[in-house]
Amino acid sequence: MHAYRTHTCAQLSAQNVGETVRLSGWIHRKRDHGGVLFVDLRDHYGITQIVADEDSPALPVLEKLRNESVVTIDGDVKARTAETVNKDLPTGEIEVFAREITVQSAAEELPMPVAGEQEYPEEIRLKYRFLDLRRETMHRNIMLRSKVITSLRQRMIDQGFTEFQTPILTASSPEGARDFLVPSRMHPGNFYALPQAPQMFKQMLMVSGFDRYFQIAPCFRDEDLRADRSLEFYQLDFEMSFVTQEDVFQALEPVLAGTFEEFSGGYSVTPSGSFPRIPYAEAMMKYGTDKPDLRNPLIISDVTSHFEKSGFGLFEKIVGGGGVVRVVPAPKTNEKSRKFFDDMNNWARSEGFAGLGYVTRKGGEFGGPIAKNHGPERMEELYNELGLGPDDGLFFAAGKEKDAAKLAGAARTQVGEQLGLIEENCFKFCWIVDFPMYEWDEDLKKVDFSHNPFSMPQGEMDALENMDPLEIKAWQYDIVCNGYELSSGAIRNHRPDIMYKAFEIAGYDKATVDREFSGMIEAFKLGAPPHGGSAPGIDRIVMLLAGEEAIREVIAFPMNQKGEDLMMSAPSKAEPSQLRELFLRTIEPPQKQAPKDQAGESES
Amino acid sequence: MHAYRTHTCAQLSAQNVGETVRLSGWIHRKRDHGGVLFVDLRDHYGITQIVADEDSPALPVLEKLRNESVVTIDGDVKARTAETVNKDLPTGEIEVFAREITVQSAAEELPMPVAGEQEYPEEIRLKYRFLDLRRETMHRNIMLRSKVITSLRQRMIDQGFTEFQTPILTASSPEGARDFLVPSRMHPGNFYALPQAPQMFKQMLMVSGFDRYFQIAPCFRDEDLRADRSLEFYQLDFEMSFVTQEDVFQALEPVLAGTFEEFSGGYSVTPSGSFPRIPYAEAMMKYGTDKPDLRNPLIISDVTSHFEKSGFGLFEKIVGGGGVVRVVPAPKTNEKSRKFFDDMNNWARSEGFAGLGYVTRKGGEFGGPIAKNHGPERMEELYNELGLGPDDGLFFAAGKEKDAAKLAGAARTQVGEQLGLIEENCFKFCWIVDFPMYEWDEDLKKVDFSHNPFSMPQGEMDALENMDPLEIKAWQYDIVCNGYELSSGAIRNHRPDIMYKAFEIAGYDKATVDREFSGMIEAFKLGAPPHGGSAPGIDRIVMLLAGEEAIREVIAFPMNQKGEDLMMSAPSKAEPSQLRELFLRTIEPPQKQAPKDQAGESES
Repeated sequence: MHAYRTHTCAQLSAQNVGETVRLSGWIHRKRDHGGVLFVDLRDHYGITQIVADEDSPALPVLEKLRNESVVTIDGDVKARTAETVNKDLPTGEIEVFAREITVQSAAEELPMPVAGEQEYPEEIRLKYRFLDLRRETMHRNIMLRSKVITSLRQRMIDQGFTEFQTPILTASSPEGARDFLVPSRMHPGNFYALPQAPQMFKQMLMVSGFDRYFQIAPCFRDEDLRADRSLEFYQLDFEMSFVTQEDVFQALEPVLAGTFEEFSGGYSVTPSGSFPRIPYAEAMMKYGTDKPDLRNPLIISDVTSHFEKSGFGLFEKIVGGGGVVRVVPAPKTNEKSRKFFDDMNNWARSEGFAGLGYVTRKGGEFGGPIAKNHGPERMEELYNELGLGPDDGLFFAAGKEKDAAKLAGAARTQVGEQLGLIEENCFKFCWIVDFPMYEWDEDLKKVDFSHNPFSMPQGEMDALENMDPLEIKAWQYDIVCNGYELSSGAIRNHRPDIMYKAFEIAGYDKATVDREFSGMIEAFKLGAPPHGGSAPGIDRIVMLLAGEEAIREVIAFPMNQKGEDLMMSAPSKAEPSQLRELFLRTIEPPQKQAPKDQAGESES
Repeated sequence: MHAYRTHTCAQLSAQNVGETVRLSGWIHRKRDHGGVLFVDLRDHYGITQIVADEDSPALPVLEKLRNESVVTIDGDVKARTAETVNKDLPTGEIEVFAREITVQSAAEELPMPVAGEQEYPEEIRLKYRFLDLRRETMHRNIMLRSKVITSLRQRMIDQGFTEFQTPILTASSPEGARDFLVPSRMHPGNFYALPQAPQMFKQMLMVSGFDRYFQIAPCFRDEDLRADRSLEFYQLDFEMSFVTQEDVFQALEPVLAGTFEEFSGGYSVTPSGSFPRIPYAEAMMKYGTDKPDLRNPLIISDVTSHFEKSGFGLFEKIVGGGGVVRVVPAPKTNEKSRKFFDDMNNWARSEGFAGLGYVTRKGGEFGGPIAKNHGPERMEELYNELGLGPDDGLFFAAGKEKDAAKLAGAARTQVGEQLGLIEENCFKFCWIVDFPMYEWDEDLKKVDFSHNPFSMPQGEMDALENMDPLEIKAWQYDIVCNGYELSSGAIRNHRPDIMYKAFEIAGYDKATVDREFSGMIEAFKLGAPPHGGSAPGIDRIVMLLAGEEAIREVIAFPMNQKGEDLMMSAPSKAEPSQLRELFLRTIEPPQKQAPKDQAGESES
């Protein structure tokens, strides 16, 4: 007989009745029925009920052991009586009568319980993560994560991608977020950096001719933390050669849709091949954001032209000053009280906006100051244009275009949630496309890149030479699911001549480009294929599929929001000898701020 | 038609003759046959021959482009004439007559060629790694690496293992090699460490109840470099709960044997289920090393007893002083000159040994000073005992046991190679088992751990309490292939009581254990399963399968031996603002040593 088990705690059924078995696991729960002890023995696979009565030498041992002790039980499989069969448990038809017991590990008093799912302070959960991970939800989340990654990986391989490992000790990158630095002992005074993403390397792999790269890539950004962000995180990083934007979409859609379908637990998923492509400008107009949650059926409209002349002076003034008026419908709100509308206005103010105007409507009758001043006839005209009915309310966001779009977008979410309009049990994907290549920098009074300077401009050199820079679009795209941006991506600019020109428009001369981006430019001069890719965030994907609100719930050993690993006590002081070897000295911070304050300050 | 290609450069065959196609790739080679240009167009998948004559507008463009430029060719597929068919090329039946050409990327002058496989200085190869990786052998090696890892991963999943990600920003570990430190910005003066291996985390996963963990794990050690070692490297890290050593072997053997069989290119592989288990003491005796190359048929023997009384005074003296005499047979060396034997002795001296004695034999006639002084009768007795024949020579390693074993081991390799006895075209695996738990530390005059203090001693508490420590074996094992140690592994000590006792024997009190290893000890007090695992080195596995001598040949973007990434220029100076944010100051090293000298000094 095996030293520890003949079966796992999920294997025994009525078929095994009469067999002598050996099981090992954790004491999950004990129930003492006066001289008869029932123990739920738990391992990774499941739970089996162990029974010990006064005939069993295991009884006194089990009685004394604390929950979460690890034991090996030798016993006989017995059928449960009809009334004690547990249909919820795969092993619910049987129980194991304990003949012998070996204590593998006696647990001391637990700082938190494992059985049951009661809330526990995060500090305790992270310090005793090895206990927290035994709990059913966490155990399931982490297993889900593994299965999701295995599925993503297999689907990428099925799409003809090959997985590569790129360096983790690498060079500091001159842009993006803050790097983690790693001092070099062999080169005192010099530092490696941990990759924010393997962007340079994946492009180098394309220049090396590898055609279709992917990696479940660890990435590192020394940024302040929040629920959906962590110092280290994983991306499904990929890149393809000789492709257009549409090829990238066609490669990724089956991977994402397939994985989501596999693990959505019955939620509907946007089918592969039919992810909507929404131009950036349209997304900002209709959803007030480039991360639209398409589960929300509400659509924002622009009604600026209606207020060029209006009895409602505030809007007329805004429009006269170049501003816009956007509206979010609030369908079937005829039964809603005035308080509902006022609360929305208060919410907008609490979010830092000037306020959210509204029109109520009940059986065709308009209410509220905007309707009153603008006039019911002209309001009816506006309603007819928008296709709104006699019982639909309307919220107004007016101001400079950017601000009005943002408020309208936030209001769309708030109204959708308040009215229970968000479609449940679904994952809705879309691509946001046609991002502007450049934008006007109001502070510096100059044209600058609006997102990624290394994306290929649509129209390539011809567009750069002949179009208004602010009209040029980039081959750049985001993939969005339920309002979460999973990733940016782009067709890259692989042509040094177009790269120099693109930077020139943003005010950077050739010498600057050569100095800052020499590695990439020099490689592109020695034969580079057109290429593009993306890098969906894996932690966020798993978080969505697990139905969790924080990525810490889908990471086995996460840090807390202060960047501390409470279980391993990291970060910590270095040994003086280590610092000597690295030729480094630490400096006392000028003020003795607690790390807590520092971490909280610059949340963005 | 697709913007870049209707087919890859490996797809077209006689079936496509007459079709109009579009191909994209790199200009691999050009051959000018006076008005007709033949171009090998290369992509990741293969090579297709392009033809352009004076009727083709592509001709002048192709003539001007340098090799490694990237082009898109529109053309007609034509059958090659019988005499020009290239049977070595999958596309060798056809060629594509170029109608149109688009230049995607014009290459400037190359610092190294891609076509052909001529040797190039490593510095150039690493600086222009994106060119080096286009070369056939490197491209194949990196693809092999990906396939090997995919295969290992699938085989682990097939064995019931689940892949997890463990943190890369973690805590400094108090033992092992030198850590890489990562300064924490949020906690000035504190540092994360990069994992030397996810040892703590995988054990925590077992304590969390996950049963069978694996990870293709990046590991980091700040050690000086050599051909088979790199600052960052990958391990097939795995751990299992409720297992014995034999369970670990049975889980890993099919993974390793299966992967090696899949990629060995016809080499024979030790079948799964029959990897020899060689006790450490036996390995040191028979092979003079715990990393025996079993392709070498030579076996070392101990002949100490023959020299207790001997006419050969040197050996008699060594044996009298507690030393040993070991021999390596040199079969069928009757035709070898005296120089062969003298050269072996010189080789031993050049390796830092005192020298390698020998006996020659030709038709039963002994030669050399040892035979002469020891006497031919007694030498014949020794030969008979070892089963050696009338034409077999014999090399002698005498001295303290450790030294003699080491010399005999090195001589075994040298003799095997010199005589061409190493079996070719095979991968021979073995497990080394039964490592001693403790050893005598001659310097400190005390018992200390001989390998891993966290392994479970065989016999557990009973052995610790009742046996001579130097006789206790550990449940610890190495997996060795063709003389390369792929990994250590162990059944872990999961019992705090046994851990305290094991450390006590080595002279560490409970307080020290609690202080140094609190994370693990505290976890083990809250219910820990028996568990064990191992972590075969992936870079070494791929190196063996690729037939390479250096792991840099199987890593896409390796550092050089000085720990520099020449392509990305890492490590490099940090910005003063970065150091200010980290509250760090760099110190000028006292002597202005070149990094080169520092890296070379402490090679081990």
